[in-house]
Amino acid sequence: MITLGVADVTRARTFYERLGWRGQEVEETVFFQAGGMAVILWARGKLAGDAGIEDRDAGGFGGLALAHNVRSPAEVDEVLAEAAAAGAEITQGARETFYGGYAGYFTDPDGHAWEIAYNPGFLPGPDGSITVPDFGAS
Amino acid sequence: MITLGVADVTRARTFYERLGWRGQEVEETVFFQAGGMAVILWARGKLAGDAGIEDRDAGGFGGLALAHNVRSPAEVDEVLAEAAAAGAEITQGARETFYGGYAGYFTDPDGHAWEIAYNPGFLPGPDGSITVPDFGAS
Repeated sequence: MITLGVADVTRARTFYERLGWRGQEVEETVFFQAGGMAVILWARGKLAGDAGIEDRDAGGFGGLALAHNVRSPAEVDEVLAEAAAAGAEITQGARETFYGGYAGYFTDPDGHAWEIAYNPGFLPGPDGSITVPDFGAS
Repeated sequence: MITLGVADVTRARTFYERLGWRGQEVEETVFFQAGGMAVILWARGKLAGDAGIEDRDAGGFGGLALAHNVRSPAEVDEVLAEAAAAGAEITQGARETFYGGYAGYFTDPDGHAWEIAYNPGFLPGPDGSITVPDFGAS
């Protein structure tokens, strides 16, 4: 499960629903099914408090990126356009990548970074799952 | 896929392998299979650059939490103990939760927050996937 801390649960839910997600809200917490995972929206202060972590920062880069891998370059463009229309900031427009793919990034209204990627080595399976290839590496 | 920005790829890989994960390293990037997902370790500066995001912060709370849901309260204690032994900071010791579960949090060497949770409403399936219950909520 991934819990995204947000400033305004309704604003964040509206954003993700404009991307086609469908959530259920229980006690000011929104639950989305995302493949075999759950993505949850919860007030950032509540999350920090639950985790026992002092929240010195108000947002900005969180030091990680979530990636939604799609099945074609065209789908990358579509999702980024939907995100922009829903109010995302496109921080990196779609472009060809060094690994032979095509990808771009946006940040959601709370600054969480998402990569939308067509990556020939990491195509989603029929159930949306991702399998790391055997690189023959240690 | 989730890419964790890290200060030192080897240090981060060692930490996660002490939790029992097994990674493959390709071009200073470590790939772990985690259920139907991939978790990736990459230099934080490279990730920020790739995402087109200015990294004003050096760490601290990233505004979200990753959760590893387990199948028993005892397993929560076990994973938190393993994490502590591997150098994690336990930011919230395991305790009973308001939703009838049992959970605690740690941060990894780069400050990424993980919740280890036994949550009777979100038990992992045989393949490790999580299914959001039908709360009957809109």
